[in-house]
Amino acid sequence: MSQQANELFDNFQQLTPSEFFRKNKQMLGFTGKIRSLTIVFHELITNSFDAAEEAGILPEINIELKRIDKEHYILRHSDNGPGIPEDFVMQVYCSMFAGSKFRNIQSRGQQGLGCSGCVLLSQMTTGEPARVISCYQEGDKLKGVKMKFKMDVKKNKGMLMEREDFPAEHTGVCIELQFKDVSYSMAEQGAFEYIRRTMIGNPHAKITFRDPSGHKYIFKRAANIVPILPKEVLPHPKGVSADDILFMAKHTDKRRYKSMLTSSLSRMSNKRVNEIEEMTGIDMNKRPKDMTWAEAEAIVNCFKKMKFMAPPSNGLIPIGSEQIEKGMKQILKPEFIATLTRKPVTYGGGVSFIIEAGIAYGGDSGRVVNEQRKSEIMRFANRVPLTFDQGSCAITEALKSIDWKRYGIKDFDNSPITLFVNIISTQVPYLSTGKQSVSPEPEIVHEIRQATMTLARKLQKHLRAKKAAKEKAMRSKVFEDYLPVIIEEAAKLGETGIPEYNQVLAKVTKRALAELLGEKVEEEEEEVEEDALIMEELDEFGYAVDDDHSNLKNIEEEVPEYEEEE
Amino acid sequence: MSQQANELFDNFQQLTPSEFFRKNKQMLGFTGKIRSLTIVFHELITNSFDAAEEAGILPEINIELKRIDKEHYILRHSDNGPGIPEDFVMQVYCSMFAGSKFRNIQSRGQQGLGCSGCVLLSQMTTGEPARVISCYQEGDKLKGVKMKFKMDVKKNKGMLMEREDFPAEHTGVCIELQFKDVSYSMAEQGAFEYIRRTMIGNPHAKITFRDPSGHKYIFKRAANIVPILPKEVLPHPKGVSADDILFMAKHTDKRRYKSMLTSSLSRMSNKRVNEIEEMTGIDMNKRPKDMTWAEAEAIVNCFKKMKFMAPPSNGLIPIGSEQIEKGMKQILKPEFIATLTRKPVTYGGGVSFIIEAGIAYGGDSGRVVNEQRKSEIMRFANRVPLTFDQGSCAITEALKSIDWKRYGIKDFDNSPITLFVNIISTQVPYLSTGKQSVSPEPEIVHEIRQATMTLARKLQKHLRAKKAAKEKAMRSKVFEDYLPVIIEEAAKLGETGIPEYNQVLAKVTKRALAELLGEKVEEEEEEVEEDALIMEELDEFGYAVDDDHSNLKNIEEEVPEYEEEE
Repeated sequence: MSQQANELFDNFQQLTPSEFFRKNKQMLGFTGKIRSLTIVFHELITNSFDAAEEAGILPEINIELKRIDKEHYILRHSDNGPGIPEDFVMQVYCSMFAGSKFRNIQSRGQQGLGCSGCVLLSQMTTGEPARVISCYQEGDKLKGVKMKFKMDVKKNKGMLMEREDFPAEHTGVCIELQFKDVSYSMAEQGAFEYIRRTMIGNPHAKITFRDPSGHKYIFKRAANIVPILPKEVLPHPKGVSADDILFMAKHTDKRRYKSMLTSSLSRMSNKRVNEIEEMTGIDMNKRPKDMTWAEAEAIVNCFKKMKFMAPPSNGLIPIGSEQIEKGMKQILKPEFIATLTRKPVTYGGGVSFIIEAGIAYGGDSGRVVNEQRKSEIMRFANRVPLTFDQGSCAITEALKSIDWKRYGIKDFDNSPITLFVNIISTQVPYLSTGKQSVSPEPEIVHEIRQATMTLARKLQKHLRAKKAAKEKAMRSKVFEDYLPVIIEEAAKLGETGIPEYNQVLAKVTKRALAELLGEKVEEEEEEVEEDALIMEELDEFGYAVDDDHSNLKNIEEEVPEYEEEE
Repeated sequence: MSQQANELFDNFQQLTPSEFFRKNKQMLGFTGKIRSLTIVFHELITNSFDAAEEAGILPEINIELKRIDKEHYILRHSDNGPGIPEDFVMQVYCSMFAGSKFRNIQSRGQQGLGCSGCVLLSQMTTGEPARVISCYQEGDKLKGVKMKFKMDVKKNKGMLMEREDFPAEHTGVCIELQFKDVSYSMAEQGAFEYIRRTMIGNPHAKITFRDPSGHKYIFKRAANIVPILPKEVLPHPKGVSADDILFMAKHTDKRRYKSMLTSSLSRMSNKRVNEIEEMTGIDMNKRPKDMTWAEAEAIVNCFKKMKFMAPPSNGLIPIGSEQIEKGMKQILKPEFIATLTRKPVTYGGGVSFIIEAGIAYGGDSGRVVNEQRKSEIMRFANRVPLTFDQGSCAITEALKSIDWKRYGIKDFDNSPITLFVNIISTQVPYLSTGKQSVSPEPEIVHEIRQATMTLARKLQKHLRAKKAAKEKAMRSKVFEDYLPVIIEEAAKLGETGIPEYNQVLAKVTKRALAELLGEKVEEEEEEVEEDALIMEELDEFGYAVDDDHSNLKNIEEEVPEYEEEE
């Protein structure tokens, strides 16, 4: 009756990563037609950004999405990055778990899954090959190659179908992929909104997007400086486990524990190593290959007892509060805005991170759900918008846990508020391969709460002041309306001329005399100024966005097909 | 200034699955001390269940968790399954994406990640090797082997350290792993609660668990029959994509489209293939190797137009509503319970699934949060409890979307309700590698809602009846109290004897005469019966569980160290 073990193992097999994700594409975030397309945009954009910035180039991306048929699209995505050397092209796009981003550096991508995931989805839904043009500098030559290939899922490798040299004019990569069973949408989780949010997190980038309807959106730069390139930081002693130390020991080229530790950890000087030698009694001149788990553990426990300077924060480059403010202002046109960037701190012992936050209130803040404005949360990790799985995300958890009534927001869910949070880290603890939610590590949740509550207090002040101002204006109004009349009548009765009463009035209403007299004019001027301001922003950002995108079209007309950078 | 492409690719590397998950262990569900340990229990238990059932053996598992030090444990997990042939032991425990469960069959595990994940975590936190004893039948010999090995992350393979023959007495596997930075907890997401819920979903299993405090819990069988073994079902035509067809064509051993299709799809007869040939004009005698995407797509589009019988449901073996009721009753001792198993339906075109649901009300239903009973949701997939990421799960979404007021539940969150949902499918669409939440496919959400609302209506009836009965009892009480007195007085006045009035009284109060007369006695008897009932359950299930686990201890004392099966 009972089956034998070996029979049960008849069909035991080893899958390649590609095979695995072919069977589990939802683990790459590919669930649902709208989401799937958004994830594709996400992967391609983040990869272009990382590559460009690493090469010290201001990112500029051109995206074109053509609808061939219902739920069948061609996507052409090209960037001005450094390009990919021919030998690596197929690895980047066809080998999963392959990448150059596995270092301890702040970058949007981390997992070597994104691009190949897009190629996989394209192939699974259309059977079409990927078409890539890569132009790159080699020595003093500018090389260009045009390739057509498919992914061999069983081998987790690319299969070249065509290649030809390409007359390169500048560096960069252009990839063309076809997709079926996906759909383009203006919805909150759609591809367009994704680009919009990307611009808030990356005001230094330029994205030109032609949507299936043929509309061309030009998201211009807010800033013309490449963000300082985050340095690769060595892991901090408080952040490593015994397993990490042992792993380093196994793969280091150093000859001694001492040199291995100082060269592979930050804040680790010979002096400190000597302290460790004393505390642990471990001979630091031994060969790393011989390190035992017990020693590694002893060393780590020693780290725990020692005091170290915080991890070098030059590894972390935040967006910066001014930049965030610029971004949010132009997209949300809020009546109030406050942003901040916290100091670097660490989670899980020694992985440093920075929290940036912003609150926008009024204007176009919040999202419109059947004519009603509701509060919205914009989550970012290393400048990348997170659009899905917000339920289990540290950012959502932290923000929901705040008692908004204490800050004068009676009904948070139904207030015109946009909350912005960006977590910067060399190692964002994502909860899923889809990289759409941040693991709620206590330190991270704490920082997000602190940052947001600080801003909430400012918002509260603003709301109070607003209320007070209103009341004051009311009071003044009474005087301004009646006083003149009374005085005139009194003058008539007293058969005297009308005295100069504005001084008094100003005192009573606590308003500047000028203001009082030139009220009308002033106001107009103010309006003009405001317009001017908006015009500047338009000029600076390409255009101002509306939730219903109604005024986008007008602006496109104003914007010439191709823009030169100033 | 700008860096060259090739420099950027200096450290381009290909990771093995093990390396990848070593850097991203949270993607295996290993986040947080409590959760990590629960996931380990989850992976080992589900693997033992699958193996035993596949071999037609009633699963019996012994788990021993010893605390060596604060947050440092040794876990010994042994089962009575068919065992693992020596050649496969290290593959099972050290090679990720390797497994025997990649077929289209309903099983708890699906991904060949679980066991190796546990070994990885153990190695990462303690550096200790895994110790495995595997006993298995080979021909007519009963073989046994004892192995000690580590995982070579860079190779995604095992490194054997020791092996010796082991005198096997019966088949099965025993694995011993050490863990640090994890913690055992009675909390809702802790390991103990996980076992408890597992018993609801698997009343045919027996688990003996000795916890770190030395307490021994014996969860006995409710049923002594091995669940019918789910058959491997061929994919349904409506459930396959062009990519799937092409994939089959590439890897089939059949010589013709025709034979390939009939042999690799369910509901696919020669007759149907001929229809396809007519509709598409594709020659079905061609060699599968030559199939083009266009052809594959044409065939799939053809499937879409055709009518097929639903997928064979013999591939899906639900728990069964009686079994669920048994399980819930003994653990929750509810005042009301209703369970059901829906008919098989399909999602995403042709993947069939079954929804099972249960509602328990009153008694120990719901969970106790600081002295207050709140409603609780127990999610299962193929009999496996899902304990995390409930936010994004189809089951949570469906249940939260129900308007409970309509069913007489005014304040759902604060009601003593336990909702049980189990989804059975050959292909549960998990959202993450941690397999803790089900993708909210519309058809799945719909089925869950239907199932639960049907039960909710029954609950509503019960609550109504309860209310009515109360009122009725009140009314009767009045008569029962006053009538006798009145009659006696009347009799005195009339100077006659007291007539026999019980008949009348019974009529008026609509109660059985016997009931009326023997009320007291009856009640006692009832109580006795109830006790008896509970005793039976105790006897049957080993013991009855309480939320505070207070009465567990007593019962352990009652239960002998080792139990014989009847």
